[in-house]
Amino acid sequence: MDEEISTRDRIVRAATRLFQLKGYHATGLNEILRESNAPKGSLYYYFPNGKEELALESIELTKVFVEETIRKRLSMIEDPAESIKNAIQEMADFIDMAENEKISLRSTKKVSVNLVALETSSSNENLRKACESAFDAWQNVYAGKLIQGGFTKQEAKKLSMVIQSMIEGAIVMSLTKKSDVPFFEVAEVIPSILKLENKN
Amino acid sequence: MDEEISTRDRIVRAATRLFQLKGYHATGLNEILRESNAPKGSLYYYFPNGKEELALESIELTKVFVEETIRKRLSMIEDPAESIKNAIQEMADFIDMAENEKISLRSTKKVSVNLVALETSSSNENLRKACESAFDAWQNVYAGKLIQGGFTKQEAKKLSMVIQSMIEGAIVMSLTKKSDVPFFEVAEVIPSILKLENKN
Repeated sequence: MDEEISTRDRIVRAATRLFQLKGYHATGLNEILRESNAPKGSLYYYFPNGKEELALESIELTKVFVEETIRKRLSMIEDPAESIKNAIQEMADFIDMAENEKISLRSTKKVSVNLVALETSSSNENLRKACESAFDAWQNVYAGKLIQGGFTKQEAKKLSMVIQSMIEGAIVMSLTKKSDVPFFEVAEVIPSILKLENKN
Repeated sequence: MDEEISTRDRIVRAATRLFQLKGYHATGLNEILRESNAPKGSLYYYFPNGKEELALESIELTKVFVEETIRKRLSMIEDPAESIKNAIQEMADFIDMAENEKISLRSTKKVSVNLVALETSSSNENLRKACESAFDAWQNVYAGKLIQGGFTKQEAKKLSMVIQSMIEGAIVMSLTKKSDVPFFEVAEVIPSILKLENKN
């Protein structure tokens, strides 16, 4: 099936998985080549500026993919609280609960940029800004849904930041605990947060 | 002032700062030596098993420090919701909002283990378990406060996981956005989460 995917795409996909799983620093270009089954030389042909250029593209890919996924899921339920709760519950599946690296590497799931964000927040402004832009894009989807549901713009902005923080935290906790429980517990309190705020 | 701190402690402190700021993989032993002003050879004298041994000790240091800090802060206000809200607001100061790496490196603040946790969750079980143990210890402090405040053990367990997720997420978001706003927004919803749950 890999035959139908272009070499360039295979490189970006492999890089995206590796950056998310192991991080920007621990991922070597040789490993990306190996994982993507790409011919030697193709990496610098497609990405002459090397690892940073590839990381920027992989962050953009994740940004667009996650944004579209959230948008789709939120459109399926009218009530903002229920739809966001539901979307977070479904994210539990996104996370690779794989017991070993092999399985995770084979997954095509794109979850977040938080590892690269933490790694580069103080050392690489290009990558930090790309991660910030991804978080902003995702927050905007939640904010849009909240505004549709009757929240003011200001409330929606604050709450979407809380929602995105809860999701990023659930990813950290789930991966560390090798458990999807953090997603379900975080999803559970969404209605409390949104209902109370709505009453103000 | 550095004169009063033992060489071993200086190494652990420098390693802790560097692991949190740049990550486990990007931090080299030479950099730790340089930052700690420790004589060449002292690193392997105190930590014969190298970087992993040093990382385990730095995670333990962070675990104990953060645990004690949360415990102190929660003991200052009786109401669980208000005390936890307050503790999270104060964490905003913990985060280095430094505009450049230099300033962050000089800080002695110990915040979290989330970068190392994300980096190692699929590749180093010793480090992953140490990070999990830190998260568990911190959650237990919140759970204890909630139980004191009248929550059942089960509620306290669930809510402390949500609280810890929110904090870890706020760290990711704050560092990426170079802003402490995520901490304040997350703190703001704590009473909503705890009040509603308490009514069940």
